[in-house]
Amino acid sequence: MGSFHVGGRRVLLSGKPCYSRTMSEGGEPVNINPNGTYAIEQMYVQYFLPQHPNGKGPLVFWHGGGMTGAAWETKPDGADGWVNYFIRQGWDVYVCDAVERGRSGFAPFPDIWPEGPIIQTVDDVYARFRIGRGEHSYYPDPALRTAHPDTRFPLAHFDDFCMQMVPRWTHTNQAMIDAFQALLERIGPASIVCHSQSGPLAMQLANAVPKHLRALVAIEPAGIPAEIETYATPTLIVMGGNLAGDERWQRLGEKISAFAGRHECVQVLDLEALGISGNSHVLMMDDNSDDIALHIQKWLLHTLPQ
Amino acid sequence: MGSFHVGGRRVLLSGKPCYSRTMSEGGEPVNINPNGTYAIEQMYVQYFLPQHPNGKGPLVFWHGGGMTGAAWETKPDGADGWVNYFIRQGWDVYVCDAVERGRSGFAPFPDIWPEGPIIQTVDDVYARFRIGRGEHSYYPDPALRTAHPDTRFPLAHFDDFCMQMVPRWTHTNQAMIDAFQALLERIGPASIVCHSQSGPLAMQLANAVPKHLRALVAIEPAGIPAEIETYATPTLIVMGGNLAGDERWQRLGEKISAFAGRHECVQVLDLEALGISGNSHVLMMDDNSDDIALHIQKWLLHTLPQ
Repeated sequence: MGSFHVGGRRVLLSGKPCYSRTMSEGGEPVNINPNGTYAIEQMYVQYFLPQHPNGKGPLVFWHGGGMTGAAWETKPDGADGWVNYFIRQGWDVYVCDAVERGRSGFAPFPDIWPEGPIIQTVDDVYARFRIGRGEHSYYPDPALRTAHPDTRFPLAHFDDFCMQMVPRWTHTNQAMIDAFQALLERIGPASIVCHSQSGPLAMQLANAVPKHLRALVAIEPAGIPAEIETYATPTLIVMGGNLAGDERWQRLGEKISAFAGRHECVQVLDLEALGISGNSHVLMMDDNSDDIALHIQKWLLHTLPQ
Repeated sequence: MGSFHVGGRRVLLSGKPCYSRTMSEGGEPVNINPNGTYAIEQMYVQYFLPQHPNGKGPLVFWHGGGMTGAAWETKPDGADGWVNYFIRQGWDVYVCDAVERGRSGFAPFPDIWPEGPIIQTVDDVYARFRIGRGEHSYYPDPALRTAHPDTRFPLAHFDDFCMQMVPRWTHTNQAMIDAFQALLERIGPASIVCHSQSGPLAMQLANAVPKHLRALVAIEPAGIPAEIETYATPTLIVMGGNLAGDERWQRLGEKISAFAGRHECVQVLDLEALGISGNSHVLMMDDNSDDIALHIQKWLLHTLPQ
């Protein structure tokens, strides 16, 4: 196992005033000259290569908006997440922090990224990740929260889950895609498991460099790129439960169905249609995450060439 | 192996205007209400528990300023870093991203953290991490850079190293200390390996909750806390090379010597005095990092009770 940073670019800033700061309590004040070269838009990647690989190539995990690679690790309830699951299946697993999040760092200069980052409230996460029933379902007191009655999300650990959320920018899509392309150029053709925000980005990447992608598993993609005409990457889109009452997901569901209808290589795994109800938007953290992983594992083995 | 977030607190923001943003290309615009509860100042921790532990308790890695837990993983030249080294020695290893960095997230609100983050230029990193000889030693063209002639840092991989640097705040010391205390309360008494900025913070923590700390290894601490009177944690301070020509490190060296002189439990491992020259400020990434790790390993085994 190990880690590296990949992709990104260098920028040169000039003409900014110097200032003095004590960087560390008890330390010496330091003169800060903000002018110079910065490394930005690189991506952090941690990898785990099992002793007995399954020979299906790398499996790359690309988290959703406001999250980091931690989303695929231990679940909020302390049980093993998909990183451990897929390592056990013999995959060469690569866990990434998309550009501008987690260990990938970010560029704190309006000269480089004009708009500031956003971070979701806990209240919003509860509703938008479809744990809660309705917009005002979150209360600090867990007893007052109105979760979906059939939710598979470990409610007792919602507060633990919230601790993984990080600020994100909303105009760094191309930088994220470029860094993933740099990763695939480095490690070779791979399968990608992506979530939410990264769904449409991974589809754009698949469209741009199809030879780098063996297969794509998109967990509840937050959109379908409008400009994709030819699309040839074997793709499995996984949809959780309690979508019916959610206007935004209703609209997205229609786009996703239309996308699958246009491209034979795209399949939708609709958990509710299989009789599995109550999955949240972070279904890799739900109590049946291993069952869903097994569906994905079977699809990947069936889809990828020997 | 697994991961979790620990510590932190909840804050409630109110009275801020709502706004609309498209969170993801091809997605639906979303109404953002920034008012509500946020989880802040938590800490991300990844752990690796070997099958055959050495029985010496947890070994916790606390990175320096502008860095994340990645500092202890694979070295910029691709060789194994200290995480892998110490796992092989049978330690239960915990790698942390200090509060406000990496997968710990940060609070992008001046209401919460009034001062913005800072990030060092590549130029500054080259000089301040004592890779370069003098303040103006960095040039984009590697052939023009003036490194210390005897440096142990893998010069060909300096640009890879720079990709790990992330923005940092300079007024979150207590939040960092609190999160580490929460970690030790969770995992039990531990030894800590810390670097630079985290040196004085770890010493403050050791002073505040001595029963939680078995031993402390401080790689080139960036300061010595002024307020520490009684200090009883077995501590090894490791100092690299090329300190003589560096004014800031000269002054810090005097403080460190005085601290060791006042407290019998504090020892200084001066690599130059052992005839090992040329180590940079990130000596865990230098080409002799395994040799230095062995010194630390021996000291820990000697210091910790059976």
